[in-house]
Amino acid sequence: MDGRPPIYLDYNATTPIEPEVREAMLPWLGERWGNPSSGHAYGAQAAEAVAAARAEVAALIGAPVSAIVFTGGGTEADNLALLGAARGPGRLVISAVEHPAVDAPAAALAAQGWLCERLPVGADGRVDLERAAALVGGGAEVALASVILAQNESGAIQPVAELAAMIRRRSPGALIHSDAAQAVGKIAVDVDALGVDLLTVVSHKLYGPAGIGALYVRDRAALRPRLLGGGQEGGLRPGTEPVALIVGLGAAAALARRTLAAEGERQRGLRERLWGRLEAAIPGLHRTIPGAIALPNTLHVCVPGLRGADLLSRAPALAASVGSACHSHDDAVSGVLGAMGVPASLARGALRLSLGRRSDAAAIDAAADALIAAWRSLA
Amino acid sequence: MDGRPPIYLDYNATTPIEPEVREAMLPWLGERWGNPSSGHAYGAQAAEAVAAARAEVAALIGAPVSAIVFTGGGTEADNLALLGAARGPGRLVISAVEHPAVDAPAAALAAQGWLCERLPVGADGRVDLERAAALVGGGAEVALASVILAQNESGAIQPVAELAAMIRRRSPGALIHSDAAQAVGKIAVDVDALGVDLLTVVSHKLYGPAGIGALYVRDRAALRPRLLGGGQEGGLRPGTEPVALIVGLGAAAALARRTLAAEGERQRGLRERLWGRLEAAIPGLHRTIPGAIALPNTLHVCVPGLRGADLLSRAPALAASVGSACHSHDDAVSGVLGAMGVPASLARGALRLSLGRRSDAAAIDAAADALIAAWRSLA
Repeated sequence: MDGRPPIYLDYNATTPIEPEVREAMLPWLGERWGNPSSGHAYGAQAAEAVAAARAEVAALIGAPVSAIVFTGGGTEADNLALLGAARGPGRLVISAVEHPAVDAPAAALAAQGWLCERLPVGADGRVDLERAAALVGGGAEVALASVILAQNESGAIQPVAELAAMIRRRSPGALIHSDAAQAVGKIAVDVDALGVDLLTVVSHKLYGPAGIGALYVRDRAALRPRLLGGGQEGGLRPGTEPVALIVGLGAAAALARRTLAAEGERQRGLRERLWGRLEAAIPGLHRTIPGAIALPNTLHVCVPGLRGADLLSRAPALAASVGSACHSHDDAVSGVLGAMGVPASLARGALRLSLGRRSDAAAIDAAADALIAAWRSLA
Repeated sequence: MDGRPPIYLDYNATTPIEPEVREAMLPWLGERWGNPSSGHAYGAQAAEAVAAARAEVAALIGAPVSAIVFTGGGTEADNLALLGAARGPGRLVISAVEHPAVDAPAAALAAQGWLCERLPVGADGRVDLERAAALVGGGAEVALASVILAQNESGAIQPVAELAAMIRRRSPGALIHSDAAQAVGKIAVDVDALGVDLLTVVSHKLYGPAGIGALYVRDRAALRPRLLGGGQEGGLRPGTEPVALIVGLGAAAALARRTLAAEGERQRGLRERLWGRLEAAIPGLHRTIPGAIALPNTLHVCVPGLRGADLLSRAPALAASVGSACHSHDDAVSGVLGAMGVPASLARGALRLSLGRRSDAAAIDAAADALIAAWRSLA
C-alpha cells in the first residue's frame, strides 16, 4: 500500500492486533521460548503463561478454566466441535446461515449418513423460532446442533439461547455448539446463558493474533480429538502449544472484557451515523439486518441496480467487502442472503461494512463520502 | 526464571525465534493486518507476503512453490499427510521410532483395518535396511509409508532415500511421507533427493514461531483435507492464514538456507567437545547414536545406574531433557530406546542434550561441569 492507507471497514474479515496485545506477546517471541511441556524453567514459565491466558479466555465467556481447549483457529475449533462430537449417524441440526467451517463438516457428516437439517432464517436474517420449533419439536432426537452466534456476513445475532432450550426440551442428550467467532469480543457472550456445550472463539476477530482460537468444551468426555499425537490440551489438541499466540489471545480477551460494553455502544453510534449518511444519499438502499439484532459494528446493505464489487472498485479510499473474506474472489451471490430471501438482483449489490475500535467519526464520514461518490459515478 | 537463566540444551524441544525472524514478523503483528483473502489493498499485501514466505520454505527443501501447504504445526502436517493420503484399508509401513504425531494416526488407520507394519531399527538407532528390504520386498503392495527423517529423541538420521527407493521398487504406487520436523534447518533436506511425496516442516524447531508448519505435497490430488471449511491453501487447509507466522517461517527458512552448513559444522564440533568432557568424567557413559549418523546438534547419552531426571534435577544450571518434550512428564522408559534394544536399566539414565545456534564453547563447558558435578553428587 503506497500513500495513505484506505479506511478499513472490514473488521469482520480480520482485526488489527491491539498494541497491548502485541506488547504481551513480544517476550514470547523473544527471550522466553520454552516449550510448555518441557520440565525445566523455560518450560515452566511458558506453562504458567498458557494457564494465565486460558483463565482470561474462560472469564470472557463465563466458562471454567478447564473447559478451554486452544486450537489453531476458528476452522479447527468448529471442526473439532462437530466432527469430534459426532458419534455414529444421527440427526444434526444447523442454521441455514453457518460459516463454511461448520457447513463443510456438516456436509461431511451428511455424507456419512447423518440426517442434516437446516433451520431457516427469516427476512431479518435470524433463525425463525416458530419454524425451528416445528422442526426440532418432532422427528427423531437431535444428537448434535450448531448455530452461529453472530453471522459473519450479515451481522445478524442468532437466538442461540432460545434454540438451545428448544432443542433440549425434546432432545435432552443433544450436544449444542455455537460458532461465536464473530460474536466474542463484540457482544457479551456467556456459555451458561446460551446453554451451549461447545463454543468457538477466534483470536483474530478479537484484536488478537491469527493462527489461534479456542473451543469451549463443557464435557471433555463428549469429545474425541481430531488431531492425533501428543498429550497437549488434555489430549484434545496435540501439538506444541504456540505460547506467544495463546498469550496474545489471553490479552485480547482481557481487553475485550474491559472495553466491550463501551466499545459496542460507540461503534453502534458510528454505524448508525454511517447508515444515516448512506440512506439519505442512495435511494432504495436496503438495510439487510435491523440494527437492534445486528452486531453493533456491522452494517450490511444492498445497493439496488449495482454490483457491490463495482461500487467498491470505484471507492479505493475504502477497504470493505461484499461478503465474507472466504468468498471475496468468487462472483456468486451470497448464500446467506439467499437464505433470507433477498432477491438475487438486490443481493448482487451487497456491501458488508464492519467497523472496529479504530473507526472514528471522521473515518466514517470519509467512508460515506467515498461510497456516495462511487455510487454517483455509477448510477 | 529469577536470576541467571539456565544453559539451554533443549533445542530439539523448541528453538528461540531468531532476531531477524522476529523483525520480519513485527509489521504483521502491527500495522499490516489484512486477511489475505480480502480483495482490498490490506488483503493484497498480506497475500503477497504469504507468497514470498511460501517461496522461501520451498527453496529450503528443493520443492516447487506450489507444493507447500501451510498448516498449524507439525502434528497437523503429519496428520494431514497420513490421514489425508490414506484411501481405504491397505498396507502402511512406518518406522519403529516415529513421533506420536505419526504413530497416533498410524494407530487410527490400523483401527480402521489397515495393516500397519513397523520397520525395526538397529542398535545404532537407524532403520535396519536389510530387515526393511525383507519386509517391504514381499507381501502386498505398500499403499502408504512414513519414516521420520531425524529422530526427535535420539537424533538418529534415518536412511529415508534408501527406504523410499526400496519401497517404490515393489510398490510403485506408494505414497511416502517423511516427518522432517527435527531435520529441516539442521541438515540439508531435498525432497527430490529423498524421493518422498510428502514431508513435514515445523517452524518452531527451525528458529521460527510456534503454531505454524508446512507440508510438502508432491501431488495435491493425492491428498484430501482434514480440516473442512473455506478454500484457503488450495482447499487443503482452510482457515484464515496466520500471516505473521507464515512470514516468520519464511524468514526462518531463508536464514537456515544461508547458515545451515556452517552452523552444522560448528555445532557438531561443540557436541563432540561436550561428549569428550562427559565421557572422560563418567565411567560407562553410553553414547546412544554414533556421531556420524546423528543430527549435528544432538548428543544422546545414557548414564548407567541413575535416572536421567534425577541427574537433571541436581543440575539446575542446565535446561535439557530426558526425552522428547511430549513425554517429559511421564516416567516410562522411552519407546525409542526400547526399539533400539537399549536395556531398560540403561534407558532410565537417558539424557537428550540438544545444542543450537546460541550454544558456545563456554556454555558447553559450563553444561559439562554442571552434569559432571551432578553425577558426582549422585554416584
